[in-house]
Amino acid sequence: MTTKNRAVAFHGIKDVRVDELDFPKLEMPDGSAAPHGVILKIVATNICGSDLHIYRGSFPVPEGMVLGHEMTGQVLEVGSDVQFLKEGDLVSVPFNVACGRCRNCRAGRTEVCETANPEQACAAYGFNLGNFQGGQAEYMFVPYADFQLLRFPDQEQAMEKILDLAVLSDILPTAFHGLMAAGAKPGSTVYIAGAGPVGRCAAAAARLLGASCIIVGDQDASRLELVRKHGCETIDLSATENLQDAVNDILGEPMVDCAVDYVGSEAHGLGSAADEMQPIAAVNQVLDITRPGGATGIIGIYGPDPIAETKAEQEGTFPVDFGKAWIKSPHIIGGQAPIMRYNRQLMMSILWDRMPYLTEMVNPRVISLDEAPQAYAEFDQGSVEKFVIDPHGMIAR
Amino acid sequence: MTTKNRAVAFHGIKDVRVDELDFPKLEMPDGSAAPHGVILKIVATNICGSDLHIYRGSFPVPEGMVLGHEMTGQVLEVGSDVQFLKEGDLVSVPFNVACGRCRNCRAGRTEVCETANPEQACAAYGFNLGNFQGGQAEYMFVPYADFQLLRFPDQEQAMEKILDLAVLSDILPTAFHGLMAAGAKPGSTVYIAGAGPVGRCAAAAARLLGASCIIVGDQDASRLELVRKHGCETIDLSATENLQDAVNDILGEPMVDCAVDYVGSEAHGLGSAADEMQPIAAVNQVLDITRPGGATGIIGIYGPDPIAETKAEQEGTFPVDFGKAWIKSPHIIGGQAPIMRYNRQLMMSILWDRMPYLTEMVNPRVISLDEAPQAYAEFDQGSVEKFVIDPHGMIAR
Amino acid sequence: MTTKNRAVAFHGIKDVRVDELDFPKLEMPDGSAAPHGVILKIVATNICGSDLHIYRGSFPVPEGMVLGHEMTGQVLEVGSDVQFLKEGDLVSVPFNVACGRCRNCRAGRTEVCETANPEQACAAYGFNLGNFQGGQAEYMFVPYADFQLLRFPDQEQAMEKILDLAVLSDILPTAFHGLMAAGAKPGSTVYIAGAGPVGRCAAAAARLLGASCIIVGDQDASRLELVRKHGCETIDLSATENLQDAVNDILGEPMVDCAVDYVGSEAHGLGSAADEMQPIAAVNQVLDITRPGGATGIIGIYGPDPIAETKAEQEGTFPVDFGKAWIKSPHIIGGQAPIMRYNRQLMMSILWDRMPYLTEMVNPRVISLDEAPQAYAEFDQGSVEKFVIDPHGMIAR
Amino acid sequence: MTTKNRAVAFHGIKDVRVDELDFPKLEMPDGSAAPHGVILKIVATNICGSDLHIYRGSFPVPEGMVLGHEMTGQVLEVGSDVQFLKEGDLVSVPFNVACGRCRNCRAGRTEVCETANPEQACAAYGFNLGNFQGGQAEYMFVPYADFQLLRFPDQEQAMEKILDLAVLSDILPTAFHGLMAAGAKPGSTVYIAGAGPVGRCAAAAARLLGASCIIVGDQDASRLELVRKHGCETIDLSATENLQDAVNDILGEPMVDCAVDYVGSEAHGLGSAADEMQPIAAVNQVLDITRPGGATGIIGIYGPDPIAETKAEQEGTFPVDFGKAWIKSPHIIGGQAPIMRYNRQLMMSILWDRMPYLTEMVNPRVISLDEAPQAYAEFDQGSVEKFVIDPHGMIAR
Repeated sequence: MTTKNRAVAFHGIKDVRVDELDFPKLEMPDGSAAPHGVILKIVATNICGSDLHIYRGSFPVPEGMVLGHEMTGQVLEVGSDVQFLKEGDLVSVPFNVACGRCRNCRAGRTEVCETANPEQACAAYGFNLGNFQGGQAEYMFVPYADFQLLRFPDQEQAMEKILDLAVLSDILPTAFHGLMAAGAKPGSTVYIAGAGPVGRCAAAAARLLGASCIIVGDQDASRLELVRKHGCETIDLSATENLQDAVNDILGEPMVDCAVDYVGSEAHGLGSAADEMQPIAAVNQVLDITRPGGATGIIGIYGPDPIAETKAEQEGTFPVDFGKAWIKSPHIIGGQAPIMRYNRQLMMSILWDRMPYLTEMVNPRVISLDEAPQAYAEFDQGSVEKFVIDPHGMIAR
Repeated sequence: MTTKNRAVAFHGIKDVRVDELDFPKLEMPDGSAAPHGVILKIVATNICGSDLHIYRGSFPVPEGMVLGHEMTGQVLEVGSDVQFLKEGDLVSVPFNVACGRCRNCRAGRTEVCETANPEQACAAYGFNLGNFQGGQAEYMFVPYADFQLLRFPDQEQAMEKILDLAVLSDILPTAFHGLMAAGAKPGSTVYIAGAGPVGRCAAAAARLLGASCIIVGDQDASRLELVRKHGCETIDLSATENLQDAVNDILGEPMVDCAVDYVGSEAHGLGSAADEMQPIAAVNQVLDITRPGGATGIIGIYGPDPIAETKAEQEGTFPVDFGKAWIKSPHIIGGQAPIMRYNRQLMMSILWDRMPYLTEMVNPRVISLDEAPQAYAEFDQGSVEKFVIDPHGMIAR
Repeated sequence: MTTKNRAVAFHGIKDVRVDELDFPKLEMPDGSAAPHGVILKIVATNICGSDLHIYRGSFPVPEGMVLGHEMTGQVLEVGSDVQFLKEGDLVSVPFNVACGRCRNCRAGRTEVCETANPEQACAAYGFNLGNFQGGQAEYMFVPYADFQLLRFPDQEQAMEKILDLAVLSDILPTAFHGLMAAGAKPGSTVYIAGAGPVGRCAAAAARLLGASCIIVGDQDASRLELVRKHGCETIDLSATENLQDAVNDILGEPMVDCAVDYVGSEAHGLGSAADEMQPIAAVNQVLDITRPGGATGIIGIYGPDPIAETKAEQEGTFPVDFGKAWIKSPHIIGGQAPIMRYNRQLMMSILWDRMPYLTEMVNPRVISLDEAPQAYAEFDQGSVEKFVIDPHGMIAR
Repeated sequence: MTTKNRAVAFHGIKDVRVDELDFPKLEMPDGSAAPHGVILKIVATNICGSDLHIYRGSFPVPEGMVLGHEMTGQVLEVGSDVQFLKEGDLVSVPFNVACGRCRNCRAGRTEVCETANPEQACAAYGFNLGNFQGGQAEYMFVPYADFQLLRFPDQEQAMEKILDLAVLSDILPTAFHGLMAAGAKPGSTVYIAGAGPVGRCAAAAARLLGASCIIVGDQDASRLELVRKHGCETIDLSATENLQDAVNDILGEPMVDCAVDYVGSEAHGLGSAADEMQPIAAVNQVLDITRPGGATGIIGIYGPDPIAETKAEQEGTFPVDFGKAWIKSPHIIGGQAPIMRYNRQLMMSILWDRMPYLTEMVNPRVISLDEAPQAYAEFDQGSVEKFVIDPHGMIAR
């Protein structure tokens, strides 16, 4: 029996290392017993854009915290109150930690679980949100396993599609949630702010759900190329002074039905201001580009940021073009995605081959655990790849 | 200026003829002025399964009524209160007649418009539902045009896709409504009862919206072949004694998330009873096959039928397996589709090429007006084609 | 420590007795451990109309089964995986047993929990639905307690309002669910079929949510009087040959926005047929009385009934006026209510005094456990009271 | 026949006068014919808080524009395409002008009608939004009458309840929309920012729909008194430094399910900052006070304001605490209310006496047309009354 656990841990800004830690226990962060939990052997665990927020110092986490919140794994050990999972099951872990017993979880709002994090109604692995250790590791503890985990029905089939299924833990349901927040449905015209991994998943999800004109905006030509090859329109934001004009050129109308921000507070300005950090720019752009009668999703991360430039931004206050949007009767949904609301249905679409374009749009690169620190450095420089850590060498390459 | 109108008219059971009639006026069926109406030159007008109900005598209509409720046309003349359409516009006509002014129309429930038909809250062209003349003709009158008509944004583009756009008048939105009634969304497992033109449109619409496993049941092998070629599973109902078993063989579960009846009261039994008319069989099958927590659409037509075998059926009373379904907490939506709720979004998906499989699944055959009587006879025998009448020879063949 | 449990048990048709049984254990019906469960000391446990179905033989249950599914109690003992409840908490028990871990529970569809009853996706206490013992007893076992139980925030306040809070376990949320199924909202016109305890709760709930014209139909004048005194209109079904006419006399229109059946398969005919059992009559009446564009709830219980008169009814097949309803584009939701979806919000309305009329409309009578067999006999004769068993003499009288 | 029309017209900041104008014609603002329109004789026309925005100069309107957008009237003359209204009908006019024919109107989004105002997708009477003359007059023109107007079923009954029905034109449905935007339902805890006429209507509407704890915040003790007398809790914002603490004192929790801003950009700070204009304060307060899993409505008016203090505010950019709200996964709906979505159902609740507290909470004072300029001046000073102009002396006093 293994007694150690190698894992990617935070040791300071731009300093992550592979540490050798103790094997995880069926215990909550406060040390109490967790009969509802399981220990997973990790099969795939991805590096996410929000891990970069930690890496860069925007989200402070304790020294030594294991990073990672996008995990697919195999059940190794089950607690005494786990009824519906058994050793060997292959599962996807939703990145939000959710108890399944509080008022919000009962209502399907697992992204704002009231109990898992005693400090506020939001918990996640590998963040400073409840002190749950992350999953960029060989093994990890997951509480409330019966409630939280999504079991793949057939293991062999699942391993064949593992690179697609690996994004069910966060970025594909997160992307899909943004589209639902913006009211997307068959025939909708959609603007996706950001062609990072979540934005590219959104482009794929928009195709899945039958959206008509799908426009993706970003500054990075190689990211945009990944979506343009698969049926999407693109706008190079560094070459665009006016977003409504750019949309109009494509669509014949200056605004779309559904606009979603997948960028967050690391946004930049348009055109001549493309080198300038403008933390609320993506919010203002998606509000600008949403038609009256449409809706807006704000999935990009906003929060008090200790390394922001202004005191207001450090506290989480931003200059929003709310007055300009108000007359359009905005419908806005922001925040983290309740992964469990969507992961099962998206798994089914993957298993029945309804997203043949997904892998190419996400553009995953499988790496070992030891390659993770280097991958963080590359991703920080703007890589067009999505890094998938394969700690046990289980993924065919 | 034309002064005559050639049109397909009903003259008795299995007797339709091309009559020469007067050119239509901007007048309601009761003879009152209709400043809100337009006269259309018909570009495409399809024969529908529900036209067969008239042809066979199940829906009595007055002698001489012009048939047809699936129309695409060009605006020829506008009433004095038509503001947003002009001569030459290419438009799709929703089959339901709806005033846009009553409580139901205001709420988007155009399939139960309260005013267009003084006898009951439901009106349609070419039926005994408000006495509106049908559109299997060279020209037709359409009331409430600004409210009702869907304008194609680009005529040249529209004429290139006219065979796909022609199903926006009824069967594609009707099919889509059935899926919405059954709660279909990306990843849903779907059972579609009936592989006629509406069922085949439903199969296509289920693909558009990202459903996972799409199962179509019918007795007709050649109809089933049209959907199997395009990513659907099929069940031959004449070779199946137990529908749950047949679904289980495909899906690994005996019930689906969403089941929709597109058959109506002309249904037959399963397997050994495949030759037996069982008017409520399709309803009982879709209720049987819907999982607890799922939902059921009943789009197939039911009503008092003067030529039904039993007095109960003549009055519209059917032996429904309601007690067996009740324990599953059924969600059921039945009736005609509110076409306007869906036709715009489906048009957008067609125009942006999101349903490349649609034409082959619908399998249209373009015919002249004079060929219509023969097409009725063929369709009555169970043709696998969807007949599209082209009264002015405008469609490229 | 108590070691016995006195409880109302079924011993045959119209034969219920107070038995002395063993004290309940933290064990599932199959004998497996239930660390997620609690033992409750029962504070109030009501006799329900569906208990009468058992009493009369329509729902067969095993000899010796403890009856009762409407329980309010105090936590006496908690399992090792109960985190959010502690000894002494006062709680309401939803009548459906639900695991909180399956696909349906995750989606809030606790009335069709997939795991609690291995035989079908529906479980309840004191029924032949998963073999869970009922709560007309001194003590009972409740599984999945963190997920299922609704804790009252203040015990003293709760004991003051205990007769109102006692209906949160079933009939008030069940009544409310019927209204939601029928789309009721402020201003809706509502028809409530049946003035039994659930129908009377529906009348109260319709007032709570701001319905405009609330019409209750029943044959029993004294039941109708309870709702008429509190702002509802009434129809005596035994004196009415045509329900649309009767509604029209009150409302000026023959149909309502929302009609809900709270009767079930023990329904009778109208007017001259008022003495005749017509199992599907209430369904046909609510379908008849729902306006096109409205919606219908079917909360009354339907199912295969071994003592029904016809073979079709014994199997659960009923002659439904579906063809007459189809043209109105019906929206129908039937089945058991997911109590957890509503009980918290209704508790809040009770605690903030928003239903001052509730007690008088429900008309509870508090009885001891020993009086229960007599209460069954009275209720079977059509009592206008709602019996609330108080096994430990805790309710002020 | 009358040939003149006396009306309240804008002549400059804080300068409104009763002018004698020409009798209105069935003509659109651009002079085109309006066969869909009617001329109304005004029965009641209220002064609204947003009229004060014009009065104070925040909303520029052309010199001479007739003010007023809350009208109840009698049909005097109908256009040739008005089918369902006739001379003498008593009607309520929704304040938004909506064509009933564009994409947004078809979808029920009449607050963002795409055609009535050529400059942007939003039109209203008596504003600079499409150049429609207001209704604080003896007579007025209303376009698209069949679609827009709400007819009272019984005139005599309506005149008895006219002061309640008069708020159906704007403030009651607007208030209700805010509650719907915030997801309010029976049992919800609600915070209402602002005890002006709209806020007081919201308090009444929250009672109608069965909300549990209803908290109203304002600085004005006499306004708060009007709601406290009718079952609401209140917070004096001038005596409160921390809103979460104040809510906690009432509710036992620091946040509510539903929070709605009815104040707009004329908001002030809390406690010691109560004398300070803080245009976005009410938005930040309702975001602060909404629980994770709750929702927020922003009904108060925001927009570019030429007389605002900062350039950013003049352009409509405000410092929003978005980062603090983001982690709570906010659901936000802002903008004008689509009156037609709610006015019929609220009329029904009034007609069936479900809001007996409404008149006292709104606190109307009926005045003559000539008293209007004085009423503007009083209202500008913060009157606790709602002024209802009765141009023809038809309302019993």
